Amino acid sequence: MADAESFEQQRERLMNLMLKKGGRTTKRFLNLDQATYRDGLLPARQKELLGLVASAVLRCDDCITYHLQQSHEAGWSNDEIREALEVAMVVGGSITIPHVRRAYGVIEEWGEAPRSSQ
Amino acid sequence: MADAESFEQQRERLMNLMLKKGGRTTKRFLNLDQATYRDGLLPARQKELLGLVASAVLRCDDCITYHLQQSHEAGWSNDEIREALEVAMVVGGSITIPHVRRAYGVIEEWGEAPRSSQ
Amino acid sequence: MADAESFEQQRERLMNLMLKKGGRTTKRFLNLDQATYRDGLLPARQKELLGLVASAVLRCDDCITYHLQQSHEAGWSNDEIREALEVAMVVGGSITIPHVRRAYGVIEEWGEAPRSSQ
Amino acid sequence: MADAESFEQQRERLMNLMLKKGGRTTKRFLNLDQATYRDGLLPARQKELLGLVASAVLRCDDCITYHLQQSHEAGWSNDEIREALEVAMVVGGSITIPHVRRAYGVIEEWGEAPRSSQ
Amino acid sequence: MADAESFEQQRERLMNLMLKKGGRTTKRFLNLDQATYRDGLLPARQKELLGLVASAVLRCDDCITYHLQQSHEAGWSNDEIREALEVAMVVGGSITIPHVRRAYGVIEEWGEAPRSSQ
Amino acid sequence: MADAESFEQQRERLMNLMLKKGGRTTKRFLNLDQATYRDGLLPARQKELLGLVASAVLRCDDCITYHLQQSHEAGWSNDEIREALEVAMVVGGSITIPHVRRAYGVIEEWGEAPRSSQ
Repeated sequence: MADAESFEQQRERLMNLMLKKGGRTTKRFLNLDQATYRDGLLPARQKELLGLVASAVLRCDDCITYHLQQSHEAGWSNDEIREALEVAMVVGGSITIPHVRRAYGVIEEWGEAPRSSQ
Repeated sequence: MADAESFEQQRERLMNLMLKKGGRTTKRFLNLDQATYRDGLLPARQKELLGLVASAVLRCDDCITYHLQQSHEAGWSNDEIREALEVAMVVGGSITIPHVRRAYGVIEEWGEAPRSSQ
Repeated sequence: MADAESFEQQRERLMNLMLKKGGRTTKRFLNLDQATYRDGLLPARQKELLGLVASAVLRCDDCITYHLQQSHEAGWSNDEIREALEVAMVVGGSITIPHVRRAYGVIEEWGEAPRSSQ
Repeated sequence: MADAESFEQQRERLMNLMLKKGGRTTKRFLNLDQATYRDGLLPARQKELLGLVASAVLRCDDCITYHLQQSHEAGWSNDEIREALEVAMVVGGSITIPHVRRAYGVIEEWGEAPRSSQ
Repeated sequence: MADAESFEQQRERLMNLMLKKGGRTTKRFLNLDQATYRDGLLPARQKELLGLVASAVLRCDDCITYHLQQSHEAGWSNDEIREALEVAMVVGGSITIPHVRRAYGVIEEWGEAPRSSQ
Repeated sequence: MADAESFEQQRERLMNLMLKKGGRTTKRFLNLDQATYRDGLLPARQKELLGLVASAVLRCDDCITYHLQQSHEAGWSNDEIREALEVAMVVGGSITIPHVRRAYGVIEEWGEAPRSSQ
């Protein structure tokens, strides 16, 4: 949990740095990135799963951790999330296994009880 | 349409070659690949969209074309599919634009009328 | 030359399709992509060379062709462009050679005479 | 050595988690991954070297460490392993150097004396 | 066969262009690339298989075709080559299937009779 | 600063190991890598920016850190470097954000005062 917080703290500190020091293109891109996962024709929760699988096949641990948390918050069950990771693993191959493995570790920290929606 | 058929014909001929000449690992992998997109906790149609986004960020035109067709068959509207591609484009960056552009060309060939579910 | 035109024509047709049929995120991303290469602290012409090298190490032929043309229009000499491609080839390895090779083919079509700035 | 054990311990814990919590596709993929490196027409030891080079060009440190250990166990000398890494470095480019560099660090921990074949 | 020749002819024409117009770094890299696959502690034929698998997981059709031909020339049987491709497919995932499929098409053109070593 | 030194110390130790234990191809590649960034038609400082963007789209933190330092030494201002990273972020997509974010952290350690050219 401490590690997860630390990840989130560093993430927030550096993100603030990007928003403060970055140029106009940087700010526009970060805003666009946020907007991409909002409800549209596809609900936000579904887009989170798309973002998770995209992150997993591109093998970016920070991105995977972020979308895992967002998918969890959005109400996907642990088993549904693990099933989405299966698609990533088959598309992306055994090279994704260390990343999927770490994702299992992140999921495990949540416990299997239904998350509080808060 | 002729091009799409040609893609499918070559795909089928070479896939048969893989099944005939490939070793046991090859056959197992191809079977596993098929099984990955069947209904589970997540419905098959949702997995197709995951496969599409994974293919788009990894920039594999043949994989994109295949999952576009499967997603279309699974009942996703053109606009829903284009929205899924938005996630891929933002995650994967402008380097995905030529692939997303070609995907738009494939979608256009279907027409915007509701597909026959057959 | 016919091939280059055909590439540009298809590119334009599909780009128009993206702008017409794509959602708000798609339009914003395409606009942002355009804005990225405008004069800033770094002049536009320098950013084209950055875009070229990024495209080359990510091995996207359409992107390479586009940034080759933009770099040429921006006034870089053929030899300067080939030197930028050297950086891409060493960073990206021999897997980039087929793409760099095709880039040499594109450059050759321009001739070695100074381009018209028009 | 402690670090290597720690890597292996975490790897084993999370792999057990994947086997316990993962769905059928996950289990089938992990089994298939194991089976891929068994003796076939090509001996297992040769496949380990193929797996090492594949891991190196895809720049996955955990995968590289795993295949380094397997290649070492399979009887390849340190110099032979370093020569395989040369192929990866030239194919994959300077972007692989940090990974190859860390691989040299792993190899160094084995010492240069002949490994016990047990 | 005509296609294979055409690939080789274009490859040769553009490679000559690179050697003629490229700078010193380009020439050194192309020479180094050639040298990488010569007999060392590992025989040249084994390095070709490493190059093939590296090319397949990085999904470069031209590189795959080149190393397929070199591996064939080096005396690997079609079945041995297909087994090496299995490693690539499992490491690299289903995203490699279109490339492996095309590799099967290239192999098929050789016939299954023992190649002439000339 | 301690972290930066530690990165440089490990980098130097392992690089020395590569030069000592690596074969002829390894040494030639490392020499070539050095030579690539020397003044040519394009000045060395410009090539550093190309190397930085290439490293960022390929998402190699060690490579990014190295080219950040080299770009800083070469006299690029923090804002110019951040603008180069914008190109990388738009080309490479949101998957590059964690790497760009860490780059902002590295840049921040330099302070915003003009660097000593020593």
